[in-house]
Amino acid sequence: MSVLPATKIKFLVAPTSAAWLQQALSNLDIILLDHSHCERKAASAALNFMFRYPSSQALVRALTAIAQEELSHFELVNQWLERRQIALGPLPPPPYGAALKAHIRHHEPDRMLDMLLVSALIEARSHERLGLLAQHCPEPDLAQFYHSLMASEARHYGVYWTLATTYFQRSQAEQRLAELAVVESNILATLHPEPRVHS
Amino acid sequence: MSVLPATKIKFLVAPTSAAWLQQALSNLDIILLDHSHCERKAASAALNFMFRYPSSQALVRALTAIAQEELSHFELVNQWLERRQIALGPLPPPPYGAALKAHIRHHEPDRMLDMLLVSALIEARSHERLGLLAQHCPEPDLAQFYHSLMASEARHYGVYWTLATTYFQRSQAEQRLAELAVVESNILATLHPEPRVHS
Ligand SMILES: [Fe+2]
Ligand SMILES: [Fe+2]
Ligand SMILES: [Fe+2]
Ligand SMILES: [Fe+2]
Repeated sequence: MSVLPATKIKFLVAPTSAAWLQQALSNLDIILLDHSHCERKAASAALNFMFRYPSSQALVRALTAIAQEELSHFELVNQWLERRQIALGPLPPPPYGAALKAHIRHHEPDRMLDMLLVSALIEARSHERLGLLAQHCPEPDLAQFYHSLMASEARHYGVYWTLATTYFQRSQAEQRLAELAVVESNILATLHPEPRVHS
Repeated sequence: MSVLPATKIKFLVAPTSAAWLQQALSNLDIILLDHSHCERKAASAALNFMFRYPSSQALVRALTAIAQEELSHFELVNQWLERRQIALGPLPPPPYGAALKAHIRHHEPDRMLDMLLVSALIEARSHERLGLLAQHCPEPDLAQFYHSLMASEARHYGVYWTLATTYFQRSQAEQRLAELAVVESNILATLHPEPRVHS
């Protein structure tokens, strides 16, 4: 599998393949529609996290801000859909999210640690892939849009990581992150046949 | 049951009782904590609505804005909790939400209409009760805070009603609203023993 000479993103074991980028660039409209769903799911995930841990003040504060940002990304992506006359609508997700979540352990406090680290990995991968689109998208306006979102996603994975080390010992968080990062890269090692942000 | 000489809120069959206001004013801290949960649930409900109807553009657009506002209310209420040193934490909800939702019909398009109208009624009741707190709360800063939220909640019930009449015939929406409004007032006719926004 050929890999891209992309900037290596902290947390990610394997960089995204050139095959994903080619698939995405050949299907920019579908990627935008999937991206809209991703932003909405990211907002929802942040809210559900707060529902589960309502007493954790640092978590509630940080995730309120993330949910707000994801909602504003959702709105921006939807403006792109409208401009390109892509109808809003359902789109089956790739296996990525469910496959990752299957590795979240069921008992607390392991569950909380795993949820934070899985969220950090998803944000890191989003950051990397939006960066590739920013770099290679042939439409300058759209490339600029992807560029404008990258910084937030980088901040988001930092926030989830900081929360992991706030509520857990650093060595424990690092060890589990290393395990989950291998899982994450393995899921993406086989390109999903449908173009998606996380194919 | 004695009732308050409150401004009659459109949509609501019966005004809030004086007993609720007294219960709330005697338990301002618990009301604030419950209010925090209400705002988070309101944001989450708007997001879940979009998950269910991803192709309905007017709905997605309107509810993105509502979710953003509810999140900013959530943040403001949490600042009040912090200022008063009330710990964030779980709090069992009153029966109101579940009792209302039990009346949502299961088949589309009835389900969508009922969900919009139930949301409109909850927003209308929130508007009325925040208004009572704004008027009667003995702490001027807190009263002012409640006053500042009232306008948004009034706008929110207007948005849900507008969506109901966008996707359904006006006469059908009016008839079902009349039925659900009776249900809503009946649920509140017996004061829940625990102080809550919707006791
Ligand atoms: Fe985002
Ligand atoms: Fe993000
Ligand atoms: Fe609100
Ligand atoms: Fe509201």
